[in-house]
Amino acid sequence: MSLELLILGSNSAAFAHRRHHTAQIFKLQDQHFLIDCGEGTQLLMKRHKVKLSRIDHIFISHLHGDHYFGLIGLLSTMHLFGRKKELLLVGPPGLKEILQLQLRHSETSLNFHIQFIEFTPGESELIMDHPKFTVITLPMDHRVPCSGYLFREKPKKRRINRKVLPDVDLTNLDIMRLKDGEDIKNADGSIKYENKLITLDPNPSYSYAYFSDTRLRAELVETIRGVDLLYHEATFANDMKERAIQTYHTTAEQAAQFAKDAEVGKLILGHFSARYKELDPIINEAKEVFDNSELAIEGTKFVVDGK
Amino acid sequence: MSLELLILGSNSAAFAHRRHHTAQIFKLQDQHFLIDCGEGTQLLMKRHKVKLSRIDHIFISHLHGDHYFGLIGLLSTMHLFGRKKELLLVGPPGLKEILQLQLRHSETSLNFHIQFIEFTPGESELIMDHPKFTVITLPMDHRVPCSGYLFREKPKKRRINRKVLPDVDLTNLDIMRLKDGEDIKNADGSIKYENKLITLDPNPSYSYAYFSDTRLRAELVETIRGVDLLYHEATFANDMKERAIQTYHTTAEQAAQFAKDAEVGKLILGHFSARYKELDPIINEAKEVFDNSELAIEGTKFVVDGK
Repeated sequence: MSLELLILGSNSAAFAHRRHHTAQIFKLQDQHFLIDCGEGTQLLMKRHKVKLSRIDHIFISHLHGDHYFGLIGLLSTMHLFGRKKELLLVGPPGLKEILQLQLRHSETSLNFHIQFIEFTPGESELIMDHPKFTVITLPMDHRVPCSGYLFREKPKKRRINRKVLPDVDLTNLDIMRLKDGEDIKNADGSIKYENKLITLDPNPSYSYAYFSDTRLRAELVETIRGVDLLYHEATFANDMKERAIQTYHTTAEQAAQFAKDAEVGKLILGHFSARYKELDPIINEAKEVFDNSELAIEGTKFVVDGK
Repeated sequence: MSLELLILGSNSAAFAHRRHHTAQIFKLQDQHFLIDCGEGTQLLMKRHKVKLSRIDHIFISHLHGDHYFGLIGLLSTMHLFGRKKELLLVGPPGLKEILQLQLRHSETSLNFHIQFIEFTPGESELIMDHPKFTVITLPMDHRVPCSGYLFREKPKKRRINRKVLPDVDLTNLDIMRLKDGEDIKNADGSIKYENKLITLDPNPSYSYAYFSDTRLRAELVETIRGVDLLYHEATFANDMKERAIQTYHTTAEQAAQFAKDAEVGKLILGHFSARYKELDPIINEAKEVFDNSELAIEGTKFVVDGK
């Protein structure tokens, strides 16, 4: 299994330099998440060959337009295409009211059910408890209620080592027990096969943290320690630090220091200010602090490979 | 002076075949109108080099998403770009509430004033009475409250015929009177210069009718008789006539017959169903009834030239 992140858009505020507003497709355990949904996201999905029907979960970080103005259009298109499957929609308070008002005025009754979850601003909540992973909210520090999201795979089961598997019939129950880390015992309770001799350690559990618009949230460093991928906004380079604080944003250097402190696998920088036609100042600044930094360039797919 | 219509988008319902949702830029007497504003309109304006700052009037026909989902993003970008000029926004009841809700949740107070006019569904109202033109609403027959718009230049003044102008000094007041059609008189009231001998007929007054989503509105034929340009939706070809009636739309043949009956200068067909990858069935059918028909292809500019 792997974890995949496809960047659809990554510009802040106004469209500029052929860069679109924030939207990304995150894939975990065969589940596809759309994270934020700026205007035109459905067109970008078409361009990057992501089928609308794959998306069963949409997570919106906050109600600034560059993060959600494409949502109502995307839901309308899902409706037009005959979607029946339920959709999970997570976002800030107010999102539901806005969508319902727009649907009411177009006299549209969606032919699929939306399970709305409005997160509690300022709190870290468990949003999804899937058998194989969890998602929690990460409270951001922004001008309006805003949340990031942390996706973590649950610990995986041990793997049977086919090479040393005893040449005997193990029952399905035995196999399940081995995967759960148990030894196989004889009827008298003595150990027949010691688990660690015929199993391998589990595959790693992957994780992804999405930091939407925010000032530096140094207090979250323990929460996200060791995540494989960290997407963090870096609206400005560090010479604009005052401006970043004033507008509730982060600089590339701050994001990189945060990534370093949290010992993440890879840092992906996004949400670029329109003032940067070229993004060299952002990436160069970040790499000086944390080398495994990359830019959230549209169309780029970041993959963390597992087995 | 001339009248210009630039098509930004013309597809109905879903984006398809690289065709975008309805939006067009109409220019009359140096005033720029944005008529309808589907998702991504601000990007299409960029593509077709229309400056946001030129737009002082936005007319929305109805609250189906393919006609207005781009509006909130466009207004937000105007705000980001520092617009101060007042904007006239005409649309159906409900539009104001939707925009205000979205602005409230993003904690945005626009730095320009919007003069909202919500039209009265089902009625034909005078929306603008500019010194040089008028705009009235045209009630459409659609699933939700919907209005078209009729732009008409007012009669223009007579033109001084420089070639036969008497070789005498005319005062500015004389010139104004001549343009208004008056004769120039001597002190005793006798005619000094007869108007019709030294002036030319006024330039023609141009007009444009926009028929948004609607069933055939044959009862409006007199209202729009002789307009220079008629944009009319033609969602379907005539083999889908039942479907057109059912969904409150028009066929190409119906639109063409309407254009012929109303003796318009040119018919522009738009709002194509995604079922038509090629638009030949639409245009061929229309041309059989009304030869001066054209398709609303994105990027096309229709110009009616005056002097």
